[in-house]
Amino acid sequence: MSKRVKEILSWYGTDNAGTLASLARLLNHGRLGGTGKLVILPVDQGFEHGPARSFAPNPAGYDPRYHFELGIEAGCNAYAAPLGFLEAGAAEFAGDIPLILKLNNSDSLSKGEPCSAVTGNVEDALRLGASAIGFTIYPGSSERNTMLEEIRELTLEAKNKGLAVVVWSYPRGAGVSKEGETAIDVVAYAAQIAAQIGAHVIKVKPPSDHIEQDAARKVYEKEGIPISTLADRVRHVVQSSFNGRRIVIFSGGPAKGKEAILEEIRGIAEGGGFGSIMGRNSFQRPKSEAIELLHEVMDIHKNA
Amino acid sequence: MSKRVKEILSWYGTDNAGTLASLARLLNHGRLGGTGKLVILPVDQGFEHGPARSFAPNPAGYDPRYHFELGIEAGCNAYAAPLGFLEAGAAEFAGDIPLILKLNNSDSLSKGEPCSAVTGNVEDALRLGASAIGFTIYPGSSERNTMLEEIRELTLEAKNKGLAVVVWSYPRGAGVSKEGETAIDVVAYAAQIAAQIGAHVIKVKPPSDHIEQDAARKVYEKEGIPISTLADRVRHVVQSSFNGRRIVIFSGGPAKGKEAILEEIRGIAEGGGFGSIMGRNSFQRPKSEAIELLHEVMDIHKNA
Amino acid sequence: MSKRVKEILSWYGTDNAGTLASLARLLNHGRLGGTGKLVILPVDQGFEHGPARSFAPNPAGYDPRYHFELGIEAGCNAYAAPLGFLEAGAAEFAGDIPLILKLNNSDSLSKGEPCSAVTGNVEDALRLGASAIGFTIYPGSSERNTMLEEIRELTLEAKNKGLAVVVWSYPRGAGVSKEGETAIDVVAYAAQIAAQIGAHVIKVKPPSDHIEQDAARKVYEKEGIPISTLADRVRHVVQSSFNGRRIVIFSGGPAKGKEAILEEIRGIAEGGGFGSIMGRNSFQRPKSEAIELLHEVMDIHKNA
Amino acid sequence: MSKRVKEILSWYGTDNAGTLASLARLLNHGRLGGTGKLVILPVDQGFEHGPARSFAPNPAGYDPRYHFELGIEAGCNAYAAPLGFLEAGAAEFAGDIPLILKLNNSDSLSKGEPCSAVTGNVEDALRLGASAIGFTIYPGSSERNTMLEEIRELTLEAKNKGLAVVVWSYPRGAGVSKEGETAIDVVAYAAQIAAQIGAHVIKVKPPSDHIEQDAARKVYEKEGIPISTLADRVRHVVQSSFNGRRIVIFSGGPAKGKEAILEEIRGIAEGGGFGSIMGRNSFQRPKSEAIELLHEVMDIHKNA
Amino acid sequence: MSKRVKEILSWYGTDNAGTLASLARLLNHGRLGGTGKLVILPVDQGFEHGPARSFAPNPAGYDPRYHFELGIEAGCNAYAAPLGFLEAGAAEFAGDIPLILKLNNSDSLSKGEPCSAVTGNVEDALRLGASAIGFTIYPGSSERNTMLEEIRELTLEAKNKGLAVVVWSYPRGAGVSKEGETAIDVVAYAAQIAAQIGAHVIKVKPPSDHIEQDAARKVYEKEGIPISTLADRVRHVVQSSFNGRRIVIFSGGPAKGKEAILEEIRGIAEGGGFGSIMGRNSFQRPKSEAIELLHEVMDIHKNA
Repeated sequence: MSKRVKEILSWYGTDNAGTLASLARLLNHGRLGGTGKLVILPVDQGFEHGPARSFAPNPAGYDPRYHFELGIEAGCNAYAAPLGFLEAGAAEFAGDIPLILKLNNSDSLSKGEPCSAVTGNVEDALRLGASAIGFTIYPGSSERNTMLEEIRELTLEAKNKGLAVVVWSYPRGAGVSKEGETAIDVVAYAAQIAAQIGAHVIKVKPPSDHIEQDAARKVYEKEGIPISTLADRVRHVVQSSFNGRRIVIFSGGPAKGKEAILEEIRGIAEGGGFGSIMGRNSFQRPKSEAIELLHEVMDIHKNA
Repeated sequence: MSKRVKEILSWYGTDNAGTLASLARLLNHGRLGGTGKLVILPVDQGFEHGPARSFAPNPAGYDPRYHFELGIEAGCNAYAAPLGFLEAGAAEFAGDIPLILKLNNSDSLSKGEPCSAVTGNVEDALRLGASAIGFTIYPGSSERNTMLEEIRELTLEAKNKGLAVVVWSYPRGAGVSKEGETAIDVVAYAAQIAAQIGAHVIKVKPPSDHIEQDAARKVYEKEGIPISTLADRVRHVVQSSFNGRRIVIFSGGPAKGKEAILEEIRGIAEGGGFGSIMGRNSFQRPKSEAIELLHEVMDIHKNA
Repeated sequence: MSKRVKEILSWYGTDNAGTLASLARLLNHGRLGGTGKLVILPVDQGFEHGPARSFAPNPAGYDPRYHFELGIEAGCNAYAAPLGFLEAGAAEFAGDIPLILKLNNSDSLSKGEPCSAVTGNVEDALRLGASAIGFTIYPGSSERNTMLEEIRELTLEAKNKGLAVVVWSYPRGAGVSKEGETAIDVVAYAAQIAAQIGAHVIKVKPPSDHIEQDAARKVYEKEGIPISTLADRVRHVVQSSFNGRRIVIFSGGPAKGKEAILEEIRGIAEGGGFGSIMGRNSFQRPKSEAIELLHEVMDIHKNA
Repeated sequence: MSKRVKEILSWYGTDNAGTLASLARLLNHGRLGGTGKLVILPVDQGFEHGPARSFAPNPAGYDPRYHFELGIEAGCNAYAAPLGFLEAGAAEFAGDIPLILKLNNSDSLSKGEPCSAVTGNVEDALRLGASAIGFTIYPGSSERNTMLEEIRELTLEAKNKGLAVVVWSYPRGAGVSKEGETAIDVVAYAAQIAAQIGAHVIKVKPPSDHIEQDAARKVYEKEGIPISTLADRVRHVVQSSFNGRRIVIFSGGPAKGKEAILEEIRGIAEGGGFGSIMGRNSFQRPKSEAIELLHEVMDIHKNA
Repeated sequence: MSKRVKEILSWYGTDNAGTLASLARLLNHGRLGGTGKLVILPVDQGFEHGPARSFAPNPAGYDPRYHFELGIEAGCNAYAAPLGFLEAGAAEFAGDIPLILKLNNSDSLSKGEPCSAVTGNVEDALRLGASAIGFTIYPGSSERNTMLEEIRELTLEAKNKGLAVVVWSYPRGAGVSKEGETAIDVVAYAAQIAAQIGAHVIKVKPPSDHIEQDAARKVYEKEGIPISTLADRVRHVVQSSFNGRRIVIFSGGPAKGKEAILEEIRGIAEGGGFGSIMGRNSFQRPKSEAIELLHEVMDIHKNA
C-alpha cells in the first residue's frame, strides 16, 4: 500500500481494523488508487430530483447497470447510490467497484424543511457488500436534530461492523439563505460538523466567497483568512476538517460545460481537496464523453 | 418455468432464493402464469373507504371469503388485502392463490397529511402463507419520512425471510396538487422512488398528461419525452422503473364502465405495463361479470 | 487518595463503584489532582460556533491533536469534546488525560428554540475510554422536555456502565431574557435542575447580580440573600447545588483579557466554586500563554 | 474482473452480493488474482501444535507481523489465522491482504475425541476486516455434531453479513483409521460434507490411494473410478465437491523438501484443484526461500 | 506517559481507545507505574482453596477490605479478585487501585475435569469500575472447549466496552501430567493459546525444565532452544507470546520462603518477564512483611 494511503489511515486511529480496511478499499481502487485522492460516482438524483430530470439527457442512465459500468469503466474509486440502485447490480458487479450505500434520501415532491428519510439499514450495506454507508445532513434545517440523531446510531453500528462513513453535508433550510448555502463560512462550518459527528469522508459543495454569518465575517476579516480564489476557500475547508486530517471531497453541482468543470476541479485540487464526487456531470453525458471527462478530472487531482 | 419469468427473476440478482421463489409464485399463478404479466385482486377498500362504500354495490363482498373465491375463480396472479381479510380465509384457501399481506392501511375517518398506519407484521405474512408484503407510500406527503422509515425495516425483514415486496406508490399530500397526483412527471417519480427503496413490484396509477413540476416540464419539453397517449406515458413510467427492470403494474381507480376500463388497459398493455391491479372494478360487480371483465383484461395483457 | 476527594465521593452514595472510580479519575488527574478542585478543557466550539470563529485566532487548534496536547501539558483534570474531536486522538493519547464525551451539540446555523442534537452514544464513551458523558440542557427553552428526556436515558445508561455525568446547564430560549440567562436566580435554578436530574458535575456560567423572576426577587430580598459580589453569588449557586454536595464548576465565556479572567476566577474560588471549565480563553491563545494562564487559574483554585 | 472469476462467482447464486464481493476479494488478490486459483497462507499451528514446534525452525515467525508480511510479500490470495494473530496486525496491515478469521481451533495438549473450540465470533471477523471466516470440522469424530452445529450458526450469520465461509474438512477421530484420514474415499467424502454444510471454499488434505470404507471400495472398483495418481484423486475430490462448482484447495501438510512439495502441487494442479493452502512449508522456511517456493507453487497452479 | 508504556500500547493496534486506556491504567499505576512492568495482587484463593486454607495463616485476610489496603499500600499495579471480594470494597476504595474482575472461578469441593464456573459478567466489571476482566483457562482439560467458548463471548464484549482482558492460562487436566503442568513446552504453549484467544495480559506459572510432549522435545533439541535456567525458560515463554508483543506475567505459586521467592523473581526479570502476580506469598504474610516483600519484588522487576 502506498505511503500516502498509510498516512491517511493513520488519522483514523480509533477505528477498528475493519473500518480501516474499508477505507483502504476506497482509497486503493481505480485510476486514483493509492494516490490519496478520490473521484466517486454518486447517483441518487433519480430519488432526489426524479427520473426524467436525471436520466432523460442520457437515457442509458435509466438502467441501474449503466452506472455500475460507468463507475467501473471510468476507474472511479467508488459508486454511491440508494438501496434500489445498488440492489439492481450489486450481485452482478460484485467485487468490481467499492460501493457506498446512501442510507437516507430526499425527494423533491414534498415541501417543508429539508430532512431526508432513512431508506436503508447498515445490514443492507453488509448484505450488498458496500464498503461504506452514506448519509446526508442539512445543517441549517430546523430538522437538523432528527438527521443528526439518526446518523449517530447508524454511524456507531457501521463502525462496529467495519464500514466507513461518508457524510454529505449540505447547509439548507430555514437557518441559511439561498446564497448562504455555499458561503465559505457555512461550507467550512458544514465540513466541521460532519467531522465532529464522526465522518470518515466529508462531501461538501465548492464554496463561494460570500460570507453568511456576521459573527463569522468579523473573524474572517480580523484574521485575514484568504477566501478570494476557489483554491483559497478549499484550503480553508480542508483546514476546517480537522486540519486536513479528514478526507474532504467536493461535489460538482448541476451539469455544466466541460471547461467550467475542469476550471473548478483545478481550484479544488490546488486548494488541497481530496477529490470530487461527480454525478450529473458524469452520467448525463454520453458514456465515452463522461469517461473522458472523469479521466481529465482524475488527472488534475492526481497531479495536484 | 417460462423464459420470460426467468428473465424477470434475473433482474433481482441480489435477492435470496426465497424471495425469488416468492416472486416466481406470483408470476406463475393463474391465467397469466408464465407470461410475465400480472393481474392482481386487491381488496383494501373496506379499510380505506369504509364497508358500505366498498361492499354495498355487491353485498357478497362483505364476506371475506368472497374475495378469495373471486381471485381464484378469475385466475388472478394474487390476492392482496389487510390482515383481517387475509386471516378470514388464508387457512380455508391455503395454497389456492398467492397472497399479498397489505402491511399498512389508511382510513378515511381521520384528516390531516396522509400517512397509513402499519397494521401487520412480516411475521403475520409468514404465518398466513403470504408470498409478499404490500406497503403504501404517499410521496408528497409531509409524513413521507415516517412511511419510508417504516418500510425500510419491513423490507429488510421481508427480504431476509424470503418474501417479495409490493409497493403502492401514490403521490398525495401537501407537496402535490390534486391534479398532480396523477401527473406524468409525478407518477414516473413515484415509481422511481418505489424502485429506489427496494420494491420488487410497483403499483402506480395510470398517469395523465399533466406535468406538475416546473423543473420537470423543462426537461420533458427539451428532451421531447412523448406523453400524449396513455401508452406513451406508461412507457415512460416503465422506463422510470429502472428501465423496465422492475415490475410495474397499474391500478384501475374508481369503478367505471367496462369499455372505459378496457380502453385504459389497452393503453397500459401497449405501453409495456406489466399488468393491472383491479379492486373496485372487480369486486363491486356481480361475480360472473367481474370474472368476465378480468378475463378480458388478462387477455389484453397476454396479447400485448 | 486525598481526604478531600474521599469526602466528595461520599456525596454520591447511590452511585456504583464504577461511576465513583470515574469521578475519582477526574478529581485525581493533573495539577489539581487530589485537591477537590477541577480545571477542565472543553472544546466544542468548532461544532457550536464554527471552525473559523473557534480556531482562526490560534490556527493550531484546527488540529484535534492540539487540544489533547494542551490539556495534557497544562495538567487539566479532563478534556471534553464531541465525538469527532475525541475519535481523532483518543487512541493516540489513550490514558494520558481523562476524557468527557460531549453527547449533544448545537450549531449556530439553525434558528429556532435552542435544543442540542444528540450526536453520540454511551457506547461511544466506552469505546473511546471516556470517564464521563457531557450533556447540555437549556432550561427556559420550549424544547426543554426533549433535552431532559434524552438525558434521562443517557444518564441511566452511563451510570449503569460506570461513567460519570457532567451537565452543562445554560438557561436560554423563550422562557428567559438575554440578561436573564446569567441572572443569579436563574443560574442558581439551572444548577438545581442539573443536580435534580442526576448530574455529578454541573457546569454553569458565572452569575450576574440581575434577578430575572419576580417571584424569586421577593424571596432574595426578604431573606436577604447576599448577591452583590461574584463570590456571594457563586456561594449561592454552590448552596443551590445540594448545599455544596454536588460539584459545580464555572465556564469562562468569550475570550477576554487575562486580568479580567483571573479576577473572575478569584471570585469563583472565594465563593467556593469547585473549579473552571475554560475553552476559548485557553485554546485561542498561543499554547505557552494558554498553559501559563491555566496554571494561574489552577493556582487560584488550589489556594482558595 | 476476469471471466473465470465471474464464472466461479456464478456458482454461488444464492449468496448475497456482500458474500460474493468477499469471495471476489479472495479470488482477485495477489499474484494469482483473477486466475481462479488461490494460494492461501494459514498460520494456526501456534495454536494447534504449540509455539516451539511451529516457530522455532524460523524464529521470525514468533512475531505475528511476520506472517502478514510473508503473505503480502509472497502475493498470497489471503492470510488465515486465529483471533490473536489477526488482532496483532489487522490494523497495521489493514487493506494489504484479505484475511480469514479462523473461528475454531484445537490444541494438542488435550486428549480425547477431536473437537476444536470456537474461539472467535463473526463480529470479530467484521471488526478485523476479514473477508471470510474459517472453521475446522473433523468428520469421523464422535464430536462431529458439536462442530457441525456450531458452524451452522456461524455460517448463517457470516452469510447474512456478507462474509465467505472456508471449511477445513479433516477426517479424524474414532470413526476413521489413521491411514483412513487421507484415504481417497474419505477425503472425497469430507469435501462433500463441507460443500453440503454450505462452505464456499473447502480445504482438504491431498488424498492417498487407500480406500477406507468397504462399502465405498465396492463402488470405486465397480465404477472404475481412477485413483492411481494424485491427479486422478484430486479430480475425484473436485468432482465430489459439487462437480467442481465449489472451490477446493489442498493443504501442504508437514514441512518437507521443496521437490516433494512441487511434485505434489503438480498433481493437485493437474487434477484441477483450485490451489493450495501452505502453512508450515511456508513460514518455517527463511522468508526469501518461502517466497521463492510460494511463487513456484503459484506458477504451477497458474499454468495448469 | 512513558515511552515504554506507549510502546507496549502500540502492540495492541486493533483495540479501541477505551481498552488502550484501561491497559494504560494498569501500566501506569503504583510503584511500577510507567516502567512497563507489573506486580498484581490476586486474591481468588478463598474461592479456589477455601477460606481457612487461604486466610487462617494471616486472619486479617478474611476481611475483603484487607486486600484492597494491601494492594494500595504496597503500590501494586492492580488488584484481582472474584465478584464478591470486589463488591465488598470497590465503592469504598473507588479510584484507589485498578481492579481486575475475575470472571470465572473454581472451587476445590468438586472433583472431575477442571473447568471454572463463570461467576461474573462484563457488566459487573463496568459497575465495579474494573479496568480488566480476568479469566482462567485450563489447557489440557477435557473441558477446554467449554472455557474457550465462554471466554470468546466475554472477550468480545469486554473489548467493545473498553476493558482489558487478563487470562490465567494454567495447563491442567487429563491431557497433561502433574509434572507437565509446569513443563517448559506446556507453559510456552499455554501462553501462546492465551495470546491466540485475544488476551492482553497473560499469566502463567514459572516453567520447569521438564519437557512434556515428545513431539515438542524433538524440536527443542533440534533447534537447541535454551531451557536450563529459569531466565532461559522465561525468555522462551515471552517469545512464545507473540515474540514479546503480549504482556506475560508469572505467578508465585504456593507460599514459600522469601529468598526462594526473590530468586525466582530474579530469573523472571532476567528472562524478560513483564512482572509478577503474587497472591498467597503476599496476603498470607503479615501486612508489613508482605509490603516489604512486594517492594523487593517490584525493585527487581524495575531494575531488570
